[in-house]
Amino acid sequence: MKNNSDSKKNNKISFSSDYTKGAHPRILERLTETNFEQNDGYGTDDYCSSAAEKIKNACGCPDADVFFLVGGTQTNQVVLDMLLKPYEGVVAAPTGHVAAHEAGAIEFSGHKVLTLPVNNDVLSAYSSDKDNVSCKYATYSDQIGKITAVDLRAFIKGFYADDNHEHMVFPGAVYISHPTEYGTLYSKTELAEISKICKDFDIPLFIDGARLGYGLMSRRTDVTLKDIAEVSDAFYIGGTKVGALFGEAVVFPKGVPTAHPVPVIKQHGALLAKGWLLGLQFDTLFTDDLYFEISKNAIDKAEALRKGLIEKGYKLYIDSPTNQQFIVMEDEKLKAFAENVRYGFWEKSDENHTVIRLATDWATTDDDIEKLMSLL
Amino acid sequence: MKNNSDSKKNNKISFSSDYTKGAHPRILERLTETNFEQNDGYGTDDYCSSAAEKIKNACGCPDADVFFLVGGTQTNQVVLDMLLKPYEGVVAAPTGHVAAHEAGAIEFSGHKVLTLPVNNDVLSAYSSDKDNVSCKYATYSDQIGKITAVDLRAFIKGFYADDNHEHMVFPGAVYISHPTEYGTLYSKTELAEISKICKDFDIPLFIDGARLGYGLMSRRTDVTLKDIAEVSDAFYIGGTKVGALFGEAVVFPKGVPTAHPVPVIKQHGALLAKGWLLGLQFDTLFTDDLYFEISKNAIDKAEALRKGLIEKGYKLYIDSPTNQQFIVMEDEKLKAFAENVRYGFWEKSDENHTVIRLATDWATTDDDIEKLMSLL
Amino acid sequence: MKNNSDSKKNNKISFSSDYTKGAHPRILERLTETNFEQNDGYGTDDYCSSAAEKIKNACGCPDADVFFLVGGTQTNQVVLDMLLKPYEGVVAAPTGHVAAHEAGAIEFSGHKVLTLPVNNDVLSAYSSDKDNVSCKYATYSDQIGKITAVDLRAFIKGFYADDNHEHMVFPGAVYISHPTEYGTLYSKTELAEISKICKDFDIPLFIDGARLGYGLMSRRTDVTLKDIAEVSDAFYIGGTKVGALFGEAVVFPKGVPTAHPVPVIKQHGALLAKGWLLGLQFDTLFTDDLYFEISKNAIDKAEALRKGLIEKGYKLYIDSPTNQQFIVMEDEKLKAFAENVRYGFWEKSDENHTVIRLATDWATTDDDIEKLMSLL
Amino acid sequence: MKNNSDSKKNNKISFSSDYTKGAHPRILERLTETNFEQNDGYGTDDYCSSAAEKIKNACGCPDADVFFLVGGTQTNQVVLDMLLKPYEGVVAAPTGHVAAHEAGAIEFSGHKVLTLPVNNDVLSAYSSDKDNVSCKYATYSDQIGKITAVDLRAFIKGFYADDNHEHMVFPGAVYISHPTEYGTLYSKTELAEISKICKDFDIPLFIDGARLGYGLMSRRTDVTLKDIAEVSDAFYIGGTKVGALFGEAVVFPKGVPTAHPVPVIKQHGALLAKGWLLGLQFDTLFTDDLYFEISKNAIDKAEALRKGLIEKGYKLYIDSPTNQQFIVMEDEKLKAFAENVRYGFWEKSDENHTVIRLATDWATTDDDIEKLMSLL
Repeated sequence: MKNNSDSKKNNKISFSSDYTKGAHPRILERLTETNFEQNDGYGTDDYCSSAAEKIKNACGCPDADVFFLVGGTQTNQVVLDMLLKPYEGVVAAPTGHVAAHEAGAIEFSGHKVLTLPVNNDVLSAYSSDKDNVSCKYATYSDQIGKITAVDLRAFIKGFYADDNHEHMVFPGAVYISHPTEYGTLYSKTELAEISKICKDFDIPLFIDGARLGYGLMSRRTDVTLKDIAEVSDAFYIGGTKVGALFGEAVVFPKGVPTAHPVPVIKQHGALLAKGWLLGLQFDTLFTDDLYFEISKNAIDKAEALRKGLIEKGYKLYIDSPTNQQFIVMEDEKLKAFAENVRYGFWEKSDENHTVIRLATDWATTDDDIEKLMSLL
Repeated sequence: MKNNSDSKKNNKISFSSDYTKGAHPRILERLTETNFEQNDGYGTDDYCSSAAEKIKNACGCPDADVFFLVGGTQTNQVVLDMLLKPYEGVVAAPTGHVAAHEAGAIEFSGHKVLTLPVNNDVLSAYSSDKDNVSCKYATYSDQIGKITAVDLRAFIKGFYADDNHEHMVFPGAVYISHPTEYGTLYSKTELAEISKICKDFDIPLFIDGARLGYGLMSRRTDVTLKDIAEVSDAFYIGGTKVGALFGEAVVFPKGVPTAHPVPVIKQHGALLAKGWLLGLQFDTLFTDDLYFEISKNAIDKAEALRKGLIEKGYKLYIDSPTNQQFIVMEDEKLKAFAENVRYGFWEKSDENHTVIRLATDWATTDDDIEKLMSLL
Repeated sequence: MKNNSDSKKNNKISFSSDYTKGAHPRILERLTETNFEQNDGYGTDDYCSSAAEKIKNACGCPDADVFFLVGGTQTNQVVLDMLLKPYEGVVAAPTGHVAAHEAGAIEFSGHKVLTLPVNNDVLSAYSSDKDNVSCKYATYSDQIGKITAVDLRAFIKGFYADDNHEHMVFPGAVYISHPTEYGTLYSKTELAEISKICKDFDIPLFIDGARLGYGLMSRRTDVTLKDIAEVSDAFYIGGTKVGALFGEAVVFPKGVPTAHPVPVIKQHGALLAKGWLLGLQFDTLFTDDLYFEISKNAIDKAEALRKGLIEKGYKLYIDSPTNQQFIVMEDEKLKAFAENVRYGFWEKSDENHTVIRLATDWATTDDDIEKLMSLL
Repeated sequence: MKNNSDSKKNNKISFSSDYTKGAHPRILERLTETNFEQNDGYGTDDYCSSAAEKIKNACGCPDADVFFLVGGTQTNQVVLDMLLKPYEGVVAAPTGHVAAHEAGAIEFSGHKVLTLPVNNDVLSAYSSDKDNVSCKYATYSDQIGKITAVDLRAFIKGFYADDNHEHMVFPGAVYISHPTEYGTLYSKTELAEISKICKDFDIPLFIDGARLGYGLMSRRTDVTLKDIAEVSDAFYIGGTKVGALFGEAVVFPKGVPTAHPVPVIKQHGALLAKGWLLGLQFDTLFTDDLYFEISKNAIDKAEALRKGLIEKGYKLYIDSPTNQQFIVMEDEKLKAFAENVRYGFWEKSDENHTVIRLATDWATTDDDIEKLMSLL
């Protein structure tokens, strides 16, 4: 997403995204403390082992396999290539990151992204104004960016019912993001329903958790990390957007589905030589619940922001329960706003209005919110 | 598509598809006559040269490059891999063969199929009954299976307008089938409009002509072979479904877009050792207008069939101007019908009705039509 | 391989290769007889079933899975993609077709060809002149083009012994051609040894039988079709070079190693719509031992040729026991020879000499051999 | 490469590799200083621009394009995919990283690695003992791991001279590593000769500079960074092994060979969200010649080590002019040595001897060398 950046950017307050800052200070401290230690390469070091143990413990799945990769698209590509057979594709929402914003990384590794047919009801404009929420794509704004169990079952059943299905791409995995790209969340029941379908058809469920912490710490969720591990066959715990310099922790709760994960990771160019840099960061994040604590900070700040926005009469584009808030702003007003604030441009909602994203993160301060509110 | 085949099948009259018979007898004769000649391999023989000349002449494009491949999916895969850069995908209708029924052959070679968003108007049920036509997908049944210039331009413009487009798959070619998978045809104006957009954005247009002959000989078209060559950057003239044992002639009217087409074809496993078998077949089909003459036969028989169907009160599912006719039949009636006729199952239209396809071809006889009509 | 072809070619006698003619007349007859039958597509027809049964019977492996594909490179690509996991490559001789002459078809599907290190002893010039045989690559000319069990075991053991092997491409299948690209053959013992190593390391053995008939009918072999099925996990029976218009029959003696072979074949663009054309050809070839009978014809003619060559004092480049004969000819003499005969250029052996290939086939006649001998 | 690591590892002195430590302290300082700045993502930030400018300046190529990637295998995969057309492969030494130790990352993206035939002279055992150097692969130990201009020209000329070359993988790029995987270096003349051949055949030259700093600061080289930029079409300046936490700076001296590098990088999963982390590190390394200064440290320490080894009578396996030193050690002696030192196991040289690697790096101290010498 493009930001309204310019030369004066560092004089501006920024809410443009959640990957604009470095890392939690504790991570930088530990990197500095351990800088001259000598570690084994490629993830075989003690920090990776320790981080994996802590993560397995937090997930309640002692038999899990845990790997550490560098970024989100890379992780989606590697994990799906592990889960899918050559003739299989991954089922996803049309708005899913793997479908829309990875420049064809999944197809690059030979697999089709099977997007669920867009639901007519969802397509129809959502015109009512209850709770100051306006969303042109979703009947209920909390559904936007999500797939539904009904659509998923219909799609997979339809596939197998089709006499031609051996000439089609088999659904070989289901991908969901939690939170979604629109900041929305699945409920525990929704996850259970999707998981049930996956089990019924023996299709693994993969959860993209690039912003998982912000989902788990939402005030409007009943889903825990253990639930995530329970319902899925693979998921990742995002570090890049949640307090790490970089890095994603991939968890296979029931074990990794290949006899040799290392060469698979390597052939994707995804095996970090100094793997301990990843291990050490996740070891830090999963010590004393740091990951959850800093995720909660983003939520607290986002809720304060949301409350303020509603109070000031702004129209929420999506009523997001996580760290990304979306509002519709008049273009004239936006111009002035942009002088002082960096935001994420989302889309034009009509000729004179724009949807913008304001994202909080692990490091957002009360002061940041106050300044922002004073400018709105 | 599955047929209602069973052990008694050879006692039945068959309209199940257009690739159930061998080849035009003239082709078998020439194969027999030339059987002990010795030809150079891999398409470097005289028959391929001769066939290419005749095709270039028929297309009115003397500077074209012509290649002969074995089958349709193979051809789509090879041609698109030649047209697309690694970061590009092909734009197609969701019902296009490359999107739906090639088991991921395009993704296998690393490219995404970018399906145009389904038009709401097209999605809405088509409930009127004019001309005995009923089609649940298309507002106008002659649009089904086609893309529109409006949607195409909106998609490409939308792509470039998106600030994130460098994180998305670039539209690198446009794919249309003519006739479409539903037997429908583009008009000359529609092709010109689509071609104009492709030129505006410097994106090649590729026309899948698996059934091209049946499109060109339709009574309801204003499109000629020269028009096809004029508007497109690549297309193929289907042989498998139009009188050849097998084979598709690929034409690049402005020249092939790679310095070394042979290794590209070879690395797809698509270079036939005895390439002259393809050359000889197309040389035969493009001698004395045989290709057009036998294509016309299929159309004449299809029109007789259509006339009969309407007279007998059948509801056309699509009012197809080519060799594939689609009707809706009551299931009880279908049962009896199936005792004597092999047809193509298309889909269930409701609980008690089924859409079936009845296809004529280059070899269908008046006698076949009469027998079929007597059974309807 | 390039032939010395020119405009006068059809006045010349041709020994340039074994894929220059059409098909055994019985095949053309049956194509003609059955031309207007209507068959189901994609290999689901009765001819494919019948041919598969006959082949399974001939191979002595009732539980085999049999598929029919169009050409050799395509077959190697599809079969190896079925046998290999994504992180695995195929072990082959540097001169193996998959390693040298498929334009990267194996790499196109993501797999490395792991060539066995060239043996020093084999590399050393072979200068003795016993039996009129001269070969610059092989210590013993009957080893050329083959891999040895010793090298294979050393390679695989070396791989697993390497501490770095998780950063290397795993040996996931072994590829041999029988006959090899140089016309040489493995003995039954050699095959058993290679097979043993494959079993020891749980690596499937794939035999490229593009010219299998000519190997089985050699006068200097102890290997039968049942032996081939016994030692291997996959092999193919070449039709293109042995009496068919085109086509290769793939046999998986212990069953195909994927749950869904059809979409895998389809996504390689290798699923022939009119699959029965392949079934009918192999059904014909495996009726009344036609395949073996016509293979024997090529061998008889090749042996007559070899005898004549030795009598006339020609130096055999390789003492080939199959249908490809290789001789070294003085360039001056070759010039005259080329006026009347089409041959295969193999390589320059020194400044004034050239290695040429003279290939017999299923259709070579006594008359052809006599004419050739008179010109030598 | 495996190290002799165990639980006591941190009590040991380590010379096992050059990627066991973190980063130069100045880098950690700047990461800490800038931690709460907010930067644009994906390499569009000011640090990347600044670093690119400094690198272009140091390379003397103002028109270069510079990108920052995370690791070496990733970089090789992305750059070669940019340089190669689909039907092309990369020419490399059999010992080149892309050929041997990337788990098939190049084949994963569809390209063959074309290894130069191993030279017979190089293969023959090198038995003389001059200068205490012993190397079983190379006639002259300074040639090991390198390709020669003679072999390269012969290979490419041989390819185009082969009548069958359209059935083979085209040489589309030449890959060399400098220093090589064995620590050896090309001379300026050797690079010029290789570059000349590449220009003659219009094939780009790509130099893997994972350890480039150690090559440039060698006491036994006449090659400068500007020479590298002058002779090549693409190269990378390794950060991971030379003072950065991670990161490689790719330079295309004559411009990047694709219109859209970002989606290519993205589809390989190689686009780092917080790209400024790479920019900031390289900005630091290319300020006040830090990169060269710390590279020189590794060389100074390696030369001290080499001198000591020769004095103590050790046999150098390769007389390496860079930071990796290779010696042959008696197994009994190695056992004791391993109690106190972590080294890299290279290979067994005979039943009772082992080749080990001792690597210095940007952070090795005089004290480290003294301790090591006292244990030898």
